[in-house]
Amino acid sequence: MKYPNGIKREYQNVITYGNRGMNLEEDLNVTNEFYRDANIAIIYKKPTPIVIHKVDFPSRKDAIITDARFSIPSTTDYNGIYRGKYIDFEAKETSHKTSFPLSNIHAHQIEHLRRIIEHGGIGFLIVRFTSFQETYFLSGQAFFHFLETKERKSIPRSYFQQAGIQIPIGLRPRLDYLKLIEVNNEK
Amino acid sequence: MKYPNGIKREYQNVITYGNRGMNLEEDLNVTNEFYRDANIAIIYKKPTPIVIHKVDFPSRKDAIITDARFSIPSTTDYNGIYRGKYIDFEAKETSHKTSFPLSNIHAHQIEHLRRIIEHGGIGFLIVRFTSFQETYFLSGQAFFHFLETKERKSIPRSYFQQAGIQIPIGLRPRLDYLKLIEVNNEK
Repeated sequence: MKYPNGIKREYQNVITYGNRGMNLEEDLNVTNEFYRDANIAIIYKKPTPIVIHKVDFPSRKDAIITDARFSIPSTTDYNGIYRGKYIDFEAKETSHKTSFPLSNIHAHQIEHLRRIIEHGGIGFLIVRFTSFQETYFLSGQAFFHFLETKERKSIPRSYFQQAGIQIPIGLRPRLDYLKLIEVNNEK
Repeated sequence: MKYPNGIKREYQNVITYGNRGMNLEEDLNVTNEFYRDANIAIIYKKPTPIVIHKVDFPSRKDAIITDARFSIPSTTDYNGIYRGKYIDFEAKETSHKTSFPLSNIHAHQIEHLRRIIEHGGIGFLIVRFTSFQETYFLSGQAFFHFLETKERKSIPRSYFQQAGIQIPIGLRPRLDYLKLIEVNNEK
């Protein structure tokens, strides 16, 4: 939802949820909405890519998609602009306790992130270990460092603790991941 | 489609089409693919936003969307990174001969473009007059200048000729719109 100039939105819904019940995607949606409303950054989740096979038109105004399939995304799910910089990231949850399986991220998405960084963009991962309700920011540099040096099919939770930064859960914004871009650069 | 490192793609399909038969979206798709393969820029069209109401699972591997609707996009259709800069644009065709109706662009999308420019991104429109097979690059600045000074519901073709830049149809890339960002800055 976009709001007309000058109209501030109340984040009552967000507060009610407290620390419970919202998944990572919902947390990022309210965070990005906060960033946009506060004019901090313009970041959106991309729509889920699907291939449409059949559309019915029951009336002139209506179009109903009656046959479609999910397709594999070529890019990460989130991108936008922050302080004039191109931002690009993928966000994933895992119920695994000791590591994050790399099979959760498509090869296309990893390649996309690599290229974004080569082109001067800011690329990173946000990974949540749902068993611990821990959410980590992992810079693209730290991610690719892991991929290049470790021959493993999953990233240990300890690597996130060591090379990433845990994102605290707040109210407004709920997951202040943009703040960690600077923190990460100072590491 | 992404191609592994070192494998160059042949643009035979594109050449075959010549000047006929491809619509603006297809032209931009092959152009962006060229930009990516040549490592000039990483720009994608966002998937069409839809709201999914029902998904069937005929087998463990299959997911078929059987009821979904198109939803109004909050953002423009295209974004990405070029020379470290955030790029964002909307592309539209019109069959009108004398002007481009502003009703073709949602209010949300106009507001989005305005904010992208405020945040230091490069925002613009690409508009094709299909009757003449003319495609124009119109900078965000020229677009908002028109909106602020003219109380009209459409942008005359003459405004595109005067304040925009016509994009020639080429082979590789097919519509070299990124080149016009610099040409436009020198205007």
